[in-house]
Parts: sequence; structure tokens; C-alpha cells
Amino acid sequence: MEETFVPFRGIKNDLKGRLKCYKEDWAGGFNSGFRIFAPTTYIFFASAIPVISFGEQLDRDTNGILTAVQTLASTSLCGILHSFLGGQPLLVLGVAEPTVIMYTFMYNFVKDKSEVGPKLFLAWSGWVCVWTAFLLLLLSILGACSIINRFTRVAGELFGMLIAMLFMQQAIKGAIEEFRIPERDDLTRPEFQPAWRFANGMFGLVLSFGLLLTGLRSRQARAWRYGAGWLRALIADYGLPIMVLVWTGISYAPTGHVPTGIPRRLFSPNPWSPGAAQNWTVIKEMLEVPVLYIFIAFIPATMIAVLYYFDHSVASQLAQQEEFNLRKPSSFHYDLLLLSGLVLICGLIGIPPANGVIPQSPMHTKSLATLKNELVRNKLVKTAKRSIQENASLGQLYGNMQEAFQQMQTPLVYQQPSALALKEMKSSTIQAASSNGRFDAPVDESIFDPEKDVDELLPVEVKEQRLSNLLQSLMVGACVGAMPGLKLIPTSVLWGYFAVMAIESLPGNQFWERLLLLFTAPSRRYKVLEGAHASFIETVPFKTIVVFTLLQFFYLISCFSITWIPIAGVLFPLLIMLLVPVRQYVLPKFFKGQHLQELDAAQYEEAPALSYEVARMEADVQGLGKPAAQTNDGEVFDEIMTPSRGEMKRRRSPLKLSSSSSPIP
Amino acid sequence: MEETFVPFRGIKNDLKGRLKCYKEDWAGGFNSGFRIFAPTTYIFFASAIPVISFGEQLDRDTNGILTAVQTLASTSLCGILHSFLGGQPLLVLGVAEPTVIMYTFMYNFVKDKSEVGPKLFLAWSGWVCVWTAFLLLLLSILGACSIINRFTRVAGELFGMLIAMLFMQQAIKGAIEEFRIPERDDLTRPEFQPAWRFANGMFGLVLSFGLLLTGLRSRQARAWRYGAGWLRALIADYGLPIMVLVWTGISYAPTGHVPTGIPRRLFSPNPWSPGAAQNWTVIKEMLEVPVLYIFIAFIPATMIAVLYYFDHSVASQLAQQEEFNLRKPSSFHYDLLLLSGLVLICGLIGIPPANGVIPQSPMHTKSLATLKNELVRNKLVKTAKRSIQENASLGQLYGNMQEAFQQMQTPLVYQQPSALALKEMKSSTIQAASSNGRFDAPVDESIFDPEKDVDELLPVEVKEQRLSNLLQSLMVGACVGAMPGLKLIPTSVLWGYFAVMAIESLPGNQFWERLLLLFTAPSRRYKVLEGAHASFIETVPFKTIVVFTLLQFFYLISCFSITWIPIAGVLFPLLIMLLVPVRQYVLPKFFKGQHLQELDAAQYEEAPALSYEVARMEADVQGLGKPAAQTNDGEVFDEIMTPSRGEMKRRRSPLKLSSSSSPIP
Repeated sequence: MEETFVPFRGIKNDLKGRLKCYKEDWAGGFNSGFRIFAPTTYIFFASAIPVISFGEQLDRDTNGILTAVQTLASTSLCGILHSFLGGQPLLVLGVAEPTVIMYTFMYNFVKDKSEVGPKLFLAWSGWVCVWTAFLLLLLSILGACSIINRFTRVAGELFGMLIAMLFMQQAIKGAIEEFRIPERDDLTRPEFQPAWRFANGMFGLVLSFGLLLTGLRSRQARAWRYGAGWLRALIADYGLPIMVLVWTGISYAPTGHVPTGIPRRLFSPNPWSPGAAQNWTVIKEMLEVPVLYIFIAFIPATMIAVLYYFDHSVASQLAQQEEFNLRKPSSFHYDLLLLSGLVLICGLIGIPPANGVIPQSPMHTKSLATLKNELVRNKLVKTAKRSIQENASLGQLYGNMQEAFQQMQTPLVYQQPSALALKEMKSSTIQAASSNGRFDAPVDESIFDPEKDVDELLPVEVKEQRLSNLLQSLMVGACVGAMPGLKLIPTSVLWGYFAVMAIESLPGNQFWERLLLLFTAPSRRYKVLEGAHASFIETVPFKTIVVFTLLQFFYLISCFSITWIPIAGVLFPLLIMLLVPVRQYVLPKFFKGQHLQELDAAQYEEAPALSYEVARMEADVQGLGKPAAQTNDGEVFDEIMTPSRGEMKRRRSPLKLSSSSSPIP
Repeated sequence: MEETFVPFRGIKNDLKGRLKCYKEDWAGGFNSGFRIFAPTTYIFFASAIPVISFGEQLDRDTNGILTAVQTLASTSLCGILHSFLGGQPLLVLGVAEPTVIMYTFMYNFVKDKSEVGPKLFLAWSGWVCVWTAFLLLLLSILGACSIINRFTRVAGELFGMLIAMLFMQQAIKGAIEEFRIPERDDLTRPEFQPAWRFANGMFGLVLSFGLLLTGLRSRQARAWRYGAGWLRALIADYGLPIMVLVWTGISYAPTGHVPTGIPRRLFSPNPWSPGAAQNWTVIKEMLEVPVLYIFIAFIPATMIAVLYYFDHSVASQLAQQEEFNLRKPSSFHYDLLLLSGLVLICGLIGIPPANGVIPQSPMHTKSLATLKNELVRNKLVKTAKRSIQENASLGQLYGNMQEAFQQMQTPLVYQQPSALALKEMKSSTIQAASSNGRFDAPVDESIFDPEKDVDELLPVEVKEQRLSNLLQSLMVGACVGAMPGLKLIPTSVLWGYFAVMAIESLPGNQFWERLLLLFTAPSRRYKVLEGAHASFIETVPFKTIVVFTLLQFFYLISCFSITWIPIAGVLFPLLIMLLVPVRQYVLPKFFKGQHLQELDAAQYEEAPALSYEVARMEADVQGLGKPAAQTNDGEVFDEIMTPSRGEMKRRRSPLKLSSSSSPIP
């Protein structure tokens, strides 16, 4: 993405890029068949459960003016519109914590003002949304998202870690709350007597930890040794929803003396209960708001606009990280424009707006990578088996598989021809075959076992389409109608779910992996090298990694502390945006450019100089002699082996947010 | 061990064998230094916790005549005597479930008989012990333990599994009991009101599962990636005791409204409370028992004698399984003789007798294997590092390490010279070095990394000595005095501990591993072959393994069902002894001899015929031409590589219970 502040240019570029693949976005989704339901269900739960819980929080904080019904409706509406009209369909929208905090702040501000009061709160917040939409419109037109390029891995991953900490904090807070009396409730009910409260808290711990442990286990089911393949795949795909059902079932096991209020369950009015629909007509009341308050609304609007601009773009960026090898273009500017429209609509119908959310958006991409992997894998295993039956040689087998692989790649016109390829066959397989003179002899399963060897050939790839986002938004919408069913879920199961989400968002975050590296015993560090690992581990001195990681860690702790400051806390993203100048001007004074490049590649830095051999090879492949750093050298770089370890070495493409495709070793 | 029924011959052989190494049994223990405390503490907890819990059970069932004080005293006393006078010091003694059931049955029988009643119960049970001791004496003199040779792996492992199931059953029963009112207690206390009972049960689940999960995790600490090596070793060695302390601490966290009776804790009178010492003078009252009842005592005595004969021998056998590569001889006959004496003593001082226990005895051996491994490993790493510093070649390095390894082997005179050796260096290391012409060049750490490569060279070996058994028995004795401290432990932590013991006893049990194999997805079976595995997996058809395992499983279920029959249930070992004729006469009709030999080697079967090459090689090595099956060919067999996999193949030595040393690949 080029860094341009010419009005409308960013939006135009985004539209141009995404329109080219719009048709394939839908076709690709429908082609996946019923398997699309696995990532859809996964992301639906990850999206709906926090939205319901934030709805409950709003319910308490606004005296029932806004409830889970409104947060679910907003999430569903914005999600549906975004999946049809949005640029980047991997981005998941939802009502998030900052929105809840801002709305609570706004409610507390107007509830005692006689000119507005609780009655006109929704109308006034409609005006806040109007201003917010206006500011977002300006930001998108002026190309504010361009600077997201300067927002490097160090900042994005710090933000991701912070969100994980906030989710974990919510899980712990929730589990502790189970021992206390809920604020709004009637103290005289039997379940609030000390004995039952203690029992409720302990039961809550059992349910929360039960969901946490079984949920995390079930996600790894594909790697289990026991059980049939289809069963393991089913558990891995639908394990979390199944576990929510199982633990909800267990929560009904105690009977007899146990009061019905134990364990506590979700609280929300049904959407068809009287008064629940009053806010849909907010637009009529907006003109009743005094002019002074219409202007005052501009103040919270600026805060919300900054938050949304930041959250929306970072969520989108984290959903499109380089590791995912995305092949379709990004759409930061246009998506911010659409967000502006969505905020306006939500404001006018009196529901809190939704924006791009973390960790759900990167979770969405990850689950689609698994889906794509499954689809390609099945095709390849079939091809390999057929080849073996036809007595093909290892060379032919590889050729057939490569061909089948290319068939699975939709030929996209909007970017240069794909360089995605099957990884080379394991050198050991080829060696074994060659040494027996069997490279050209018919293969049998002792040389190449389709069921197990295909996995190692596959690069990471994401099924980029719009269907999963549409379906999950529709399912969130269906939750509004399914409210009586949702109310069966114990709140403690939700806290367990929050913990699962926090933990699931960590793997793949290099900041997290560097933190773990600090705690790895020196004698065990070779284990990190044995597995897949980022290249900095080999190229940057350990001491430098330590210093860099500790700095980042203290920055994280500062950000986390700020969230504890009552209202200003919501502005913690500003502290993260401060990382942009810190990264650009301060860090280079303390770290070598090459090390920074490895730990945190930034577009404004030059790629390290290439050695003569590499540069020549590069030039040969491309058939021309221009300097390597100016071309998209991602593909060629990725094929270079680190000679000392015989492993592919991952090189970061200097065009960080481009949609260049680079198979991860 | 030869199968002989000539009176006294078995005892004489045992004594002869063990006397030779008696001095080394003590020296070896003291040479280990403070590291001996790791297995000691481990086995002390595994021994003391069930004994305390069985004591509580007896307390309830005998109206307080026998308590945890007596069971601890008996376990300690018998353990101390056995560690000094016993033949096989790996055998752990303790008051076990069958004893508790028999004593309960005996108490219920006499409590209403006016001639005996509760007052003379201990005196009468003294007579039962006298008869039992007499019967055990007869059995040991007549060489009854000889038939333990016919007691094959299939029966031993079935028994081990059954005990694991009974421990797990106890854990589950205990956890459920936490929700109920304890039988003997005062119903009006606040903690027995429904709300607090429910709270107590839920808290119990948290504590039980907490101990179970953290306990199991801590045992694997040595393989963790994080934390310094000494910390991981400490956690692995003392993790379970530490976790008992931690969860006991957590059980004190709730304060405020929570009654002190929650969670429930161990119940036992202090040994110095009035009346607790009354039973030590039982011998005086024994003559007051009517003659008729002295003869009636013979009936329970026969049952106890059969049980003890069986349990004691099998516990000893399982502690000396072939995989442990024990180097000192067994002592079944003499140990049964000693048990006869111990039963007599216990009977005369009015405490329930102790016998060899499962799973503690094999757990003891396993923990000593870890200890020995640590000791040898440290020595070898030091040697390897010195060799590398001295620029030794790979050949020299291996020679130096072999020499250091031999120094660690105490030259024992009571058996043929040890053939235990370091395993061959990884063929890959040697290949890599040879292909570079570096086998004779100085080694560096890229070729041989002492910290990680030494582990792969070590065979399984056990530190056989008497000190750990003595120390753990003394610690069990100290528990009697530490009763006020023990009473701080919540019972729910005990149930978690029972579950840990059940689970810890499973790995290494081939029956369990075959059961797992049945559930392994066909596409994942290669993973079993990739790891260390028993040879039957490669040599016996999968279908045969399935049928054999299912038969064994249904036999296990039958045995388990029998334990549910009120009093006769205690005789389930008879059903397991029935396996001896079943194995010998029935199974060979359904399975090929060679398959049975692989799945369950029996001494009375011939070893499978050797191929010409193997037999010749065998003859060459031994320098003579006698038929292979008649010699102890264990060592040579073990060196044979399975050519197709490049792995060592484990061959079972035909002399199953001999102390032949065979390094496991």
C-alpha cells in the first residue's frame, strides 16, 4: 500500500483492488461446501460471547436502556453490511469494550442533566454517532490509514497482547464476581446467602476451568493420536461450541436442595418484552436534543473516532499479517469509509456501533487457513493415492501434485501470477529414493505415504471469501431471537470462554514467543531452533532480543496500567500510537538497523544489503539486473535455504502490507 | 529362579543371593548422597496417603478401635523391619485395601458375639494373625512362590490395571462423598446444611482436580522448556509433595462466612489421646478368647494367607519387571517367610498387618531408575565435556564415556560379569562424522552435544539399595507423631492424590498401551512405531493384538465386577490366579505360540526358533555352538538391529525373572 495523503486516492485504490476479486470472494466461499461451517461457527462463538457479555455490562451501566439485544443487533447488522459492502472480508465487526466504556461515560454525563436525561440519552448518543461518522469520513478521505504502514509488528503485537490481557482480566474478574452479590439483584433471594454464594463461586470455578481446559484440548484434536480422523476433525472444528453445550449441561446436574439461581446464568430481556423496541425510533427524538448538547456531543465523538480509526485499522492489519500469505489486497481506507456509514446508521436507530475487533479478526483468518489447508490436503492426498496406484515415479507424483495444487489456486487477475508452490519434498524422502535409484521407479507407500507426507508439503494459505463473515453475522443476528436459549448458559462458562480466547490469541504473536524465549532454559533453546521459528532467533544476538523484549514488555505494562484509570483509560490506544515515532526515531538509536529489521521490519527502512551471490541469483530468476531491494523479492528470498541448518529461512518481504504471497517454511 | 518345591530350597537360594549384595545394598544407598531423598519423598507420599485414608476407613468401620495411627504404625514397623531383614528392598510394604476389608468383615462377625464382642476383637484378630503367619510359613517353606514364574506378564499387568481402577474408583467415590454427610458426624453442624454441603463438594472438586492436574504436570517438569534445570529437577522430584502443600494452603483461602469444617479434612485421633494406646497390650488378652473362636479364626486366616501370598509376590514381581534391568537377584520365598513373621508381630501387638503393595512397589523401582539415570548422566556429561576440551575424537570420546560408565557399575560378584553398556551412539552422529572423515578428528559440540546427546545413550538402570525403603518407613512412622499436621490436609486433596497414583501407574503397562493402541487412529499408528515401543507391535498381526487385548479387557472387567460383591469381593486375586492355567492351557489353543511369546513371554514356552544367520552370529559371539535357546542370549539379542527401521528391537529374554541385564532400546 502506498503512503498517500491525496484525498480519495486511498479509497479509489482499495476499491479497484477489491472489486477485481469481489466475485471470487463469493464463489470461493460457496465452493468450500459445508466445511465453511467450521470456521463460521468458531468465529460466531468468539464474536457472540463477548458481545453478549458486553451487552450485560451495558445493561447494568445504563439502567437497562441498552442491553445484549442491542449489542447483538448492532454486531449482526454491521457484520452483514460489511460482508456485502466491506473491502476486507476477513475483518470481523463487533461491539467492543471501548464502545461500552464510552457509552457508560456518556450515560453518566447526561443522566442527571434535566435537558437530556435518560429519556433523550439515545437521541443524544445518536448525535455523538453523527459527529463520529463525520470525523471518520474525513479521516478516510484524507488517507489517514496510510500511516498504518508505519505501524509495525512491534506495535501491532503489543496491542494484541494487551487485548489478550484485558480478556484474561475479564475472565478473572468474572470468576471472582461469582462469589459476590450482583449489584442490581435482590439481596434476600436464597442464592445470595453466604453459603450459596460460596457454593456458586466454587461451582463457577469448576465450570470456568472445565470449559477452559477441555476447550483448549479440543482445539488440538487434529493432532490427537486416538479416535478416527473425522471425529478428531469434528472436535477440532466444533470443540468450543460443543464444550459450551457440555458445560451448560453439567451446570444443570445439581438438583434437589440447590436453588435455581445457582449457577448464575446470562441475564438479558427478551427482545419481544415490552419496551425493548423503544430505541428503534430514536431518529424522531434527535431533534428534541438542545443545540448546546448537539455541540457537546462533538467531544466524545472525537474520542470515539480516534478509537475506531485505530482499532478498526489494527484489527484489519492483524487479520492480514504477512504470515498468512494473503493473496487479495488490503482495504484500509475504504473500510474506514464504510465504518463511517455504519456508525451513522447505528446512531440513527439507537444502537451502539460496532467496529473491527481483536482478537476475533486474526482468529478468523487463522481458522480460514485451517480450512484452506484441509481442502487442499484432501485434493492432494487423493492425487497422490491415484498416482501411486498408477505406478507413477516420485518425480511424476510430485508433478501431479503440483498440478493439482495449482488447480486449487483460483487464477486471480488482480495481482502478478502466483508463486505459491508446494514446498519441496522432504530432502530425506528424495535422498532415500535417489540412493536406491528409485526416483524414477514406481513409488509405493513406504517412500511416500500420502496420508502423512502431504501435510509437510503444504504452505500456509487462507481461504479468503465473504461467506463465513456473512454467515457468522447472520448467526449473531439469530441470537437475538434465541435469547431464551442463550439465557441457559452459565456466566461462569463465559468467563472460561474469555480465558480461552485470550490464550488462543497468543500463538504466532512474536512478542509472546520472545517472552517465552526469555524463560526458556539455555540448555533447551535448541528446541526452539528445532521447530519452525522466526529468522531473528538465528540472526539477532540473544542479548539484543532480551533488551528489545524487556522494553516492549514494560511498554505493555504501562499501557495496561493506563486502562485502569477510570475514563481516560479508554484512550490507551494513543499510547500505542506513540510507538510509531518511538519506533521510527528512538529505537534506531539503541539497536542496530539490521537487528531492528529482523525483529520488526518497517517499510521506511531499507532492506539489508544482499550478498553478491544472492543478488545475482535474484537477478537471474527475474531475468533482469535491477537492484533487488526495489522489486518484490519475497518469493525468491523464501526459497533460499539457510545452509547451516538445512531449513528454509523465513525472510520478511520489505513490502509489509502488500498482498505478496510468500510461502512460510 | 528355578521352579522347585523341595522344602527350604527356595529360601536358601534367596538368602544366598541376597546376602552377597547386602553390604552393597547399604553402601549404594549412602553413596547416592542427598539425591536419595527425591525417590524417598515420592514413595513416602505414595505410601502414607493411602495408608492414612485406609486408616480413616477402618476407624469408621470398627467404631474407632483401629485408626490411622495403627495403620501408619504397622506400615512403618513392617517397612523398617523389611528394609533391614527383607530380601528384595524394592518391595514397599503397607496396610492395603484387602486388609481393611477383611478386618471390617472380622469386626462385623465378632461384634455381636457375647463371648468376644468389640472388647476382645483385637485379641481375636491376633489369633487370626497367628494362623495366617503359620500358613504363610508353610507356603514359603514349601516353595509356593515358585509358581510365580507361571504368573506371566498378562496376569501381572491385569492385576496392576485392576489396582489402578480401584484407586481411581476410590478417588471418584471420595469426591462424591464430599457432597454427602459423613456417616458418623453430627447432622446439626452448619457445614452439613444443604448449601454448605454443596459448597463443600464443589470446593472439593476444585481441590481434587487442582492437585490432579498440577501434580501430573509437575512430574513431567524435567521435560519442560522453561525454567532453569535445577528448578525443573526440583519440581519433578518433589512436585507432588509441593502440590499437596500448595493445595492445602489454598484450602485455607476462604475466610469470613465459611465454617471451619469446610473443606473437610483428615480425621484421626492423636496417638497420645486417651485410649489410643490400649491395643498395644493385646497379647495379654489373647488367652481370654474362647477356644472355639480360636479355631474359627482359622477361616479368615486362610483367606488372608492366600491374599497376602498373592499380593506380596505380585507386588515384588511387578517391582522387578524385566524392563528395569535389575542386577540383583529376587527373593520371593524368603520375603514370604519374613512376611509370616511380620504378620505374627502385628497380630500380637494388635495392629493390622502390612504386605507388599501395588502400585507403590513398581513406582518405587521407577523412581530409583530416574535417580540412577541422573547420577550416571551427570558423570557422563562431565566426561564428555572434558573429552571435548581435550580435543578427543568421537571414537575416543565414546571410549572415555564407556569407561566412566563402567566405573559407575559396582562390580558385583553375585552374578555373571555385567553386559550393561552404553547404547551405541546414534548412527546418525557416527554417519555424519564418518562422511566428513571426522570420526578420528577432534569432536566439537556440533557433532556431539553432551547436554542432550548423553540422554540417548543411557540404558534403563535402577539404583538398587535399602536406604530409600528404610527412610520412607521412618517417615511414615514420623507421621504418627505429626498427626496434628496431617489433619490440616483436606480429604479432597487425598482423592486427587489417589487419581494421580492411578494414572501414574499406567505408563509402561503393556496391557494399557495395547488398549490405547486399539483407540489409535490407523493413520496415526506410525507414531507408535516412531517412539520407543515393544517388539510385538511389529511382529504380531494387528488383528491378533486386538483379540488378545479384548480378551484381557473382558477378564479385567470380570475381576472388577467381582470386587463389588460385598465380602467375597476381597477374593478377586483368585480370579487372577485362574489366569495361570488359562494362559498355559487355553490361550495356546487360540493364538500362535510365537505371537503369545511376543505378547506374553512365559518361561515354560520355548523361545522361537532362530534364523540361521542369527544363530550363527550368536554362536560366534559366545565362541561355541550350543543351541541358542538354552543360553542366556538376552544380551546378544538386544544388540540386533531391526534392519527395516534402523532401531534397536527389544527382545524378551526367555529367563523372565532372572536378573539378566538387557538394555532397552
